[in-house]
Amino acid sequence: MSPTPKALERLIQELTNLPGFGPKSAERLAYYFLKQPAEIIENLVDSLRQAKKVVITCVECQRFAEESPCLICKDKRRDASILCVVAESHNIPIIEKTHAFAGKYHVLHGTLSALEGVTPEKLKVKELVARLQKNGVKEVVLALNPDLDGETTALYLAKLIKPLNIKVTKLARGLPVGADLEYADEVTLESAINERREV
Amino acid sequence: MSPTPKALERLIQELTNLPGFGPKSAERLAYYFLKQPAEIIENLVDSLRQAKKVVITCVECQRFAEESPCLICKDKRRDASILCVVAESHNIPIIEKTHAFAGKYHVLHGTLSALEGVTPEKLKVKELVARLQKNGVKEVVLALNPDLDGETTALYLAKLIKPLNIKVTKLARGLPVGADLEYADEVTLESAINERREV
Repeated sequence: MSPTPKALERLIQELTNLPGFGPKSAERLAYYFLKQPAEIIENLVDSLRQAKKVVITCVECQRFAEESPCLICKDKRRDASILCVVAESHNIPIIEKTHAFAGKYHVLHGTLSALEGVTPEKLKVKELVARLQKNGVKEVVLALNPDLDGETTALYLAKLIKPLNIKVTKLARGLPVGADLEYADEVTLESAINERREV
Repeated sequence: MSPTPKALERLIQELTNLPGFGPKSAERLAYYFLKQPAEIIENLVDSLRQAKKVVITCVECQRFAEESPCLICKDKRRDASILCVVAESHNIPIIEKTHAFAGKYHVLHGTLSALEGVTPEKLKVKELVARLQKNGVKEVVLALNPDLDGETTALYLAKLIKPLNIKVTKLARGLPVGADLEYADEVTLESAINERREV
Protein backbone atom coordinates (compact mmCIF):
# COMPACT_ATOMS: atom_id res chain seq x y z
CA MET A 1 0.00 0.00 0.00
CA SER A 2 1.51 3.30 -1.11
CA PRO A 3 0.26 5.90 1.33
CA THR A 4 1.33 8.97 -0.76
CA PRO A 5 -0.65 9.73 -3.94
CA LYS A 6 1.48 9.48 -7.11
CA ALA A 7 0.69 13.00 -8.32
CA LEU A 8 1.82 14.30 -4.94
CA GLU A 9 4.99 12.20 -5.08
CA ARG A 10 5.77 13.64 -8.52
CA LEU A 11 5.26 17.21 -7.27
CA ILE A 12 7.49 16.56 -4.24
CA GLN A 13 10.13 15.07 -6.55
CA GLU A 14 10.08 18.11 -8.84
CA LEU A 15 10.27 20.50 -5.89
CA THR A 16 13.27 18.57 -4.52
CA ASN A 17 15.16 19.59 -7.69
CA LEU A 18 14.87 23.27 -6.82
CA PRO A 19 17.95 24.95 -5.33
CA GLY A 20 18.06 24.84 -1.54
CA PHE A 21 15.39 22.15 -1.34
CA GLY A 22 15.67 18.78 0.35
CA PRO A 23 13.00 16.05 0.55
CA LYS A 24 11.54 17.52 3.76
CA SER A 25 11.21 21.12 2.58
CA ALA A 26 9.82 19.93 -0.78
CA GLU A 27 7.23 17.83 1.04
CA ARG A 28 6.31 20.75 3.26
CA LEU A 29 5.84 23.05 0.26
CA ALA A 30 3.81 20.46 -1.68
CA TYR A 31 1.41 20.03 1.24
CA TYR A 32 1.19 23.79 1.56
CA PHE A 33 0.15 24.04 -2.11
CA LEU A 34 -2.52 21.35 -1.69
CA LYS A 35 -4.10 23.35 1.11
CA GLN A 36 -4.16 26.64 -0.79
CA PRO A 37 -7.16 27.78 -2.83
CA ALA A 38 -6.68 27.34 -6.60
CA GLU A 39 -6.42 31.14 -7.13
CA ILE A 40 -3.24 31.36 -5.03
CA ILE A 41 -1.63 28.64 -7.14
CA GLU A 42 -2.75 30.25 -10.40
CA ASN A 43 -1.44 33.60 -9.21
CA LEU A 44 1.98 32.10 -8.59
CA VAL A 45 1.94 30.27 -11.93
CA ASP A 46 1.00 33.53 -13.63
CA SER A 47 3.82 35.48 -11.90
CA LEU A 48 6.26 32.80 -12.91
CA ARG A 49 5.19 32.83 -16.56
CA GLN A 50 4.98 36.62 -16.67
CA ALA A 51 8.52 36.97 -15.28
CA LYS A 52 9.74 34.34 -17.76
CA LYS A 53 8.09 36.28 -20.61
CA VAL A 54 8.91 39.88 -19.69
CA VAL A 55 12.38 39.59 -18.19
CA ILE A 56 15.08 39.56 -20.85
CA THR A 57 18.86 39.57 -20.85
CA CYS A 58 20.53 42.93 -21.55
CA VAL A 59 22.52 42.57 -24.78
CA GLU A 60 25.36 44.63 -23.25
CA CYS A 61 25.82 43.67 -19.59
CA GLN A 62 23.89 40.35 -19.73
CA ARG A 63 21.85 41.14 -16.62
CA PHE A 64 18.16 40.31 -16.28
CA ALA A 65 16.19 43.45 -17.17
CA GLU A 66 12.99 44.62 -18.80
CA GLU A 67 14.79 46.48 -21.58
CA SER A 68 17.90 45.85 -23.65
CA PRO A 69 20.23 47.68 -23.47
CA CYS A 70 19.24 48.16 -19.83
CA LEU A 71 18.92 51.50 -18.03
CA ILE A 72 22.44 51.30 -16.59
CA CYS A 73 24.00 50.44 -19.95
CA LYS A 74 22.12 53.30 -21.64
CA ASP A 75 23.09 55.83 -18.94
CA LYS A 76 25.61 58.18 -20.56
CA ARG A 77 26.59 59.73 -17.18
CA ARG A 78 28.16 56.44 -16.08
CA ASP A 79 31.85 55.82 -16.67
CA ALA A 80 32.13 53.30 -19.51
CA SER A 81 35.88 52.91 -18.96
CA ILE A 82 35.40 50.94 -15.74
CA LEU A 83 33.51 47.64 -15.73
CA CYS A 84 32.36 45.79 -12.63
CA VAL A 85 32.05 42.02 -13.14
CA VAL A 86 29.48 40.29 -10.91
CA ALA A 87 28.28 36.70 -10.71
CA GLU A 88 24.53 37.40 -10.66
CA SER A 89 22.09 40.14 -11.69
CA HIS A 90 20.92 40.63 -8.13
CA ASN A 91 24.45 41.62 -7.07
CA ILE A 92 24.01 44.88 -9.02
CA PRO A 93 21.37 46.57 -6.80
CA ILE A 94 23.49 45.73 -3.74
CA ILE A 95 26.52 47.48 -5.21
CA GLU A 96 24.38 50.35 -6.48
CA LYS A 97 23.14 51.00 -2.94
CA THR A 98 26.68 51.82 -1.76
CA HIS A 99 26.97 54.67 -4.34
CA ALA A 100 30.68 53.80 -4.45
CA PHE A 101 30.69 52.68 -8.07
CA ALA A 102 29.74 54.80 -11.09
CA GLY A 103 30.96 52.57 -13.91
CA LYS A 104 29.13 49.86 -15.84
CA TYR A 105 28.48 46.19 -15.08
CA HIS A 106 28.89 42.76 -16.57
CA VAL A 107 26.98 39.73 -15.25
CA LEU A 108 28.60 36.28 -15.56
CA HIS A 109 25.49 34.33 -14.48
CA GLY A 110 27.46 32.11 -12.15
CA THR A 111 31.04 31.37 -11.18
CA LEU A 112 33.40 28.65 -12.31
CA SER A 113 32.84 25.48 -10.32
CA ALA A 114 34.66 22.21 -10.81
CA LEU A 115 32.20 20.52 -8.46
CA GLU A 116 29.09 21.64 -10.33
CA GLY A 117 30.72 21.39 -13.78
CA VAL A 118 30.50 25.12 -14.52
CA THR A 119 33.07 25.83 -17.25
CA PRO A 120 33.85 29.27 -18.81
CA GLU A 121 31.60 28.36 -21.77
CA LYS A 122 28.61 28.22 -19.41
CA LEU A 123 29.28 31.76 -18.18
CA LYS A 124 29.03 35.09 -20.05
CA VAL A 125 32.83 35.19 -20.44
CA LYS A 126 32.88 35.31 -24.25
CA GLU A 127 30.53 38.31 -24.10
CA LEU A 128 32.80 40.00 -21.56
CA VAL A 129 35.89 39.57 -23.73
CA ALA A 130 33.99 40.88 -26.77
CA ARG A 131 33.00 44.01 -24.82
CA LEU A 132 36.55 44.56 -23.61
CA GLN A 133 37.95 44.23 -27.12
CA LYS A 134 35.67 46.80 -28.71
CA ASN A 135 35.15 49.32 -25.89
CA GLY A 136 37.68 51.64 -24.26
CA VAL A 137 37.58 49.84 -20.93
CA LYS A 138 40.56 50.74 -18.72
CA GLU A 139 39.72 48.80 -15.57
CA VAL A 140 37.78 45.67 -14.73
CA VAL A 141 36.65 45.33 -11.09
CA LEU A 142 35.97 41.71 -10.16
CA ALA A 143 33.16 41.83 -7.55
CA LEU A 144 32.86 38.10 -6.88
CA ASN A 145 32.22 36.26 -3.63
CA PRO A 146 35.41 35.75 -1.60
CA ASP A 147 34.99 31.96 -1.65
CA LEU A 148 36.70 29.17 -3.58
CA ASP A 149 34.60 29.45 -6.75
CA GLY A 150 34.72 33.26 -6.70
CA GLU A 151 38.51 33.31 -6.30
CA THR A 152 38.97 30.70 -9.03
CA THR A 153 36.83 32.74 -11.38
CA ALA A 154 38.75 35.93 -10.47
CA LEU A 155 42.09 34.27 -11.21
CA TYR A 156 40.80 32.87 -14.48
CA LEU A 157 39.42 36.24 -15.63
CA ALA A 158 42.54 38.15 -14.57
CA LYS A 159 44.68 35.84 -16.68
CA LEU A 160 42.31 36.35 -19.62
CA ILE A 161 41.95 40.14 -19.35
CA LYS A 162 45.50 41.29 -18.48
CA PRO A 163 46.90 40.55 -22.00
CA LEU A 164 44.36 43.09 -23.29
CA ASN A 165 46.27 45.79 -21.36
CA ILE A 166 43.38 46.37 -19.01
CA LYS A 167 43.89 46.85 -15.28
CA VAL A 168 42.18 44.08 -13.28
CA THR A 169 41.18 44.74 -9.67
CA LYS A 170 39.14 42.85 -7.15
CA LEU A 171 37.14 43.87 -4.11
CA ALA A 172 39.31 44.32 -1.02
CA ARG A 173 39.38 41.54 1.52
CA GLY A 174 37.43 43.72 3.87
CA LEU A 175 34.75 41.12 3.35
CA PRO A 176 34.99 38.33 5.89
CA VAL A 177 36.37 35.19 4.21
CA GLY A 178 33.67 32.63 3.49
CA ALA A 179 30.88 35.21 3.53
CA ASP A 180 28.29 35.74 0.83
CA LEU A 181 28.15 39.07 -1.02
CA GLU A 182 24.39 38.99 -0.48
CA TYR A 183 24.76 39.37 3.25
CA ALA A 184 27.49 42.02 3.38
CA ASP A 185 26.48 45.29 5.03
CA GLU A 186 26.71 48.43 2.89
CA VAL A 187 29.60 50.02 4.80
CA THR A 188 31.79 46.91 4.52
CA LEU A 189 30.96 46.60 0.86
CA GLU A 190 31.67 50.28 0.26
CA SER A 191 35.16 50.06 1.79
CA ALA A 192 35.75 46.88 -0.17
CA ILE A 193 34.99 48.82 -3.35
CA ASN A 194 37.15 51.79 -2.35
CA GLU A 195 40.10 49.57 -1.38
CA ARG A 196 39.99 47.29 -4.39
CA ARG A 197 43.41 45.89 -5.31
CA GLU A 198 45.08 44.92 -8.53
CA VAL A 199 45.16 41.13 -9.07
CA MET B 1 16.37 53.89 -11.55
CA SER B 2 14.82 50.63 -10.43
CA PRO B 3 17.38 47.93 -11.16
CA THR B 4 15.05 44.93 -10.66
CA PRO B 5 12.34 44.31 -13.32
CA LYS B 6 8.80 44.64 -11.92
CA ALA B 7 7.70 41.17 -13.09
CA LEU B 8 10.70 39.72 -11.26
CA GLU B 9 9.91 41.75 -8.14
CA ARG B 10 6.35 40.42 -8.22
CA LEU B 11 7.57 36.82 -8.55
CA ILE B 12 10.02 37.30 -5.66
CA GLN B 13 7.20 38.82 -3.59
CA GLU B 14 4.91 35.84 -4.26
CA LEU B 15 7.67 33.34 -3.49
CA THR B 16 8.38 35.16 -0.20
CA ASN B 17 4.83 34.23 0.90
CA LEU B 18 5.62 30.49 0.68
CA PRO B 19 6.34 28.67 3.96
CA GLY B 20 10.01 28.66 4.92
CA PHE B 21 10.89 31.42 2.46
CA GLY B 22 12.56 34.73 3.25
CA PRO B 23 13.43 37.51 0.79
CA LYS B 24 16.86 35.98 0.04
CA SER B 25 15.68 32.43 -0.67
CA ALA B 26 12.77 33.77 -2.74
CA GLU B 27 15.20 35.88 -4.78
CA ARG B 28 17.47 32.91 -5.28
CA LEU B 29 14.60 30.71 -6.48
CA ALA B 30 13.25 33.44 -8.81
CA TYR B 31 16.66 33.83 -10.50
CA TYR B 32 16.91 30.05 -10.76
CA PHE B 33 13.55 29.96 -12.59
CA LEU B 34 14.63 32.71 -15.00
CA LYS B 35 17.67 30.65 -15.98
CA GLN B 36 15.74 27.43 -16.57
CA PRO B 37 14.39 26.43 -19.98
CA ALA B 38 10.63 26.97 -20.36
CA GLU B 39 9.96 23.18 -20.34
CA ILE B 40 11.26 22.82 -16.77
CA ILE B 41 8.93 25.57 -15.60
CA GLU B 42 5.95 24.12 -17.49
CA ASN B 43 6.73 20.67 -16.05
CA LEU B 44 6.60 22.07 -12.55
CA VAL B 45 3.41 24.01 -13.29
CA ASP B 46 1.87 20.83 -14.70
CA SER B 47 2.87 18.76 -11.63
CA LEU B 48 1.41 21.40 -9.38
CA ARG B 49 -1.90 21.52 -11.25
CA GLN B 50 -2.06 17.74 -11.60
CA ALA B 51 -1.52 17.27 -7.86
CA LYS B 52 -4.14 19.95 -7.13
CA LYS B 53 -6.60 18.15 -9.44
CA VAL B 54 -5.98 14.50 -8.55
CA VAL B 55 -5.27 14.67 -4.83
CA ILE B 56 -8.43 14.74 -2.76
CA THR B 57 -9.25 14.63 0.93
CA CYS B 58 -10.37 11.25 2.30
CA VAL B 59 -13.93 11.67 3.58
CA GLU B 60 -13.12 9.44 6.58
CA CYS B 61 -9.62 10.27 7.87
CA GLN B 62 -9.25 13.65 6.07
CA ARG B 63 -5.80 12.80 4.71
CA PHE B 64 -4.66 13.72 1.20
CA ALA B 65 -5.19 10.68 -1.03
CA GLU B 66 -6.16 9.67 -4.54
CA GLU B 67 -9.29 7.87 -3.45
CA SER B 68 -11.98 8.48 -0.84
CA PRO B 69 -12.34 6.58 1.39
CA CYS B 70 -8.59 5.99 1.21
CA LEU B 71 -6.86 2.60 1.14
CA ILE B 72 -6.20 2.63 4.89
CA CYS B 73 -9.81 3.58 5.73
CA LYS B 74 -11.13 0.84 3.41
CA ASP B 75 -8.77 -1.81 4.84
CA LYS B 76 -10.99 -4.19 6.84
CA ARG B 77 -7.96 -5.90 8.45
CA ARG B 78 -7.10 -2.72 10.36
CA ASP B 79 -8.45 -2.22 13.86
CA ALA B 80 -11.18 0.43 13.65
CA SER B 81 -11.42 0.67 17.44
CA ILE B 82 -8.11 2.54 17.75
CA LEU B 83 -7.60 5.88 16.05
CA CYS B 84 -4.26 7.67 15.68
CA VAL B 85 -4.60 11.47 15.40
CA VAL B 86 -1.80 13.21 13.45
CA ALA B 87 -1.26 16.82 12.46
CA GLU B 88 -0.44 16.26 8.77
CA SER B 89 -1.01 13.62 6.06
CA HIS B 90 2.73 13.04 5.68
CA ASN B 91 2.95 11.91 9.31
CA ILE B 92 1.06 8.72 8.32
CA PRO B 93 3.78 7.05 6.18
CA ILE B 94 6.32 7.72 8.97
CA ILE B 95 4.14 5.90 11.51
CA GLU B 96 3.29 3.16 8.99
CA LYS B 97 7.01 2.43 8.52
CA THR B 98 7.32 1.44 12.19
CA HIS B 99 4.70 -1.36 11.76
CA ALA B 100 3.81 -0.60 15.38
CA PHE B 101 0.32 0.67 14.68
CA ALA B 102 -2.50 -1.31 13.04
CA GLY B 103 -5.43 1.00 13.72
CA LYS B 104 -6.85 3.84 11.64
CA TYR B 105 -5.87 7.49 11.33
CA HIS B 106 -7.31 10.97 11.53
CA VAL B 107 -5.52 14.01 10.09
CA LEU B 108 -6.07 17.42 11.75
CA HIS B 109 -4.30 19.43 9.00
CA GLY B 110 -2.36 21.49 11.49
CA THR B 111 -2.14 22.11 15.22
CA LEU B 112 -3.69 24.80 17.37
CA SER B 113 -1.52 27.91 17.38
CA ALA B 114 -2.29 31.15 19.15
CA LEU B 115 0.59 32.82 17.32
CA GLU B 116 -0.61 31.84 13.85
CA GLY B 117 -4.31 32.18 14.69
CA VAL B 118 -5.11 28.48 14.21
CA THR B 119 -8.35 27.82 16.11
CA PRO B 120 -10.14 24.41 16.41
CA GLU B 121 -12.52 25.51 13.61
CA LYS B 122 -9.58 25.63 11.19
CA LEU B 123 -8.63 22.03 11.97
CA LYS B 124 -10.50 18.78 11.24
CA VAL B 125 -11.70 18.57 14.85
CA LYS B 126 -15.43 18.59 14.08
CA GLU B 127 -14.87 15.65 11.69
CA LEU B 128 -12.92 13.79 14.40
CA VAL B 129 -15.70 14.21 16.96
CA ALA B 130 -18.30 13.06 14.40
CA ARG B 131 -16.26 9.90 13.74
CA LEU B 132 -15.87 9.20 17.45
CA GLN B 133 -19.60 9.61 18.06
CA LYS B 134 -20.73 7.16 15.42
CA ASN B 135 -17.93 4.54 15.43
CA GLY B 136 -16.95 2.10 18.11
CA VAL B 137 -13.61 3.77 18.83
CA LYS B 138 -12.12 2.69 22.16
CA GLU B 139 -8.78 4.53 22.11
CA VAL B 140 -7.45 7.71 20.51
CA VAL B 141 -3.65 7.94 20.23
CA LEU B 142 -2.51 11.55 19.89
CA ALA B 143 0.64 11.42 17.73
CA LEU B 144 1.43 15.14 17.72
CA ASN B 145 4.81 16.87 17.88
CA PRO B 146 6.11 17.26 21.44
CA ASP B 147 6.27 21.06 21.10
CA LEU B 148 4.12 23.90 22.45
CA ASP B 149 1.47 23.77 19.70
CA GLY B 150 1.39 19.95 19.72
CA GLU B 151 0.95 19.81 23.48
CA THR B 152 -1.74 22.50 23.45
CA THR B 153 -3.64 20.58 20.78
CA ALA B 154 -3.26 17.31 22.71
CA LEU B 155 -4.64 18.91 25.89
CA TYR B 156 -7.53 20.45 23.98
CA LEU B 157 -8.44 17.16 22.26
CA ALA B 158 -8.11 15.12 25.46
CA LYS B 159 -10.61 17.43 27.19
CA LEU B 160 -12.97 17.08 24.22
CA ILE B 161 -12.71 13.29 23.81
CA LYS B 162 -12.65 12.02 27.41
CA PRO B 163 -16.37 12.82 28.07
CA LEU B 164 -17.17 10.41 25.20
CA ASN B 165 -15.78 7.58 27.38
CA ILE B 166 -12.88 6.98 25.03
CA LYS B 167 -9.35 6.35 26.30
CA VAL B 168 -6.93 9.10 25.17
CA THR B 169 -3.19 8.36 24.99
CA LYS B 170 -0.21 10.19 23.55
CA LEU B 171 3.18 9.05 22.25
CA ALA B 172 5.73 8.42 25.01
CA ARG B 173 8.33 11.08 25.64
CA GLY B 174 11.86 10.00 26.36
CA LEU B 175 15.34 9.56 25.05
CA PRO B 176 15.56 8.75 21.34
CA VAL B 177 16.97 5.29 20.68
CA GLY B 178 20.74 5.49 20.17
CA ALA B 179 20.99 8.86 21.91
CA ASP B 180 23.70 9.79 24.38
CA LEU B 181 22.56 10.80 27.87
CA GLU B 182 25.27 13.48 27.82
CA TYR B 183 23.60 15.33 24.98
CA ALA B 184 19.96 14.96 25.98
CA ASP B 185 18.26 18.25 26.77
CA GLU B 186 16.86 18.73 30.27
CA VAL B 187 13.22 18.68 29.29
CA THR B 188 13.53 15.40 27.37
CA LEU B 189 15.52 13.86 30.21
CA GLU B 190 12.93 15.04 32.71
CA SER B 191 10.12 13.35 30.76
CA ALA B 192 12.25 10.23 30.35
CA ILE B 193 12.60 10.08 34.13
CA ASN B 194 8.94 10.83 34.80
CA GLU B 195 7.73 8.27 32.29
CA ARG B 196 10.27 5.60 33.32
CA ARG B 197 9.19 1.98 32.87
CA GLU B 198 9.91 -1.19 34.77
CA VAL B 199 12.45 -3.37 32.99
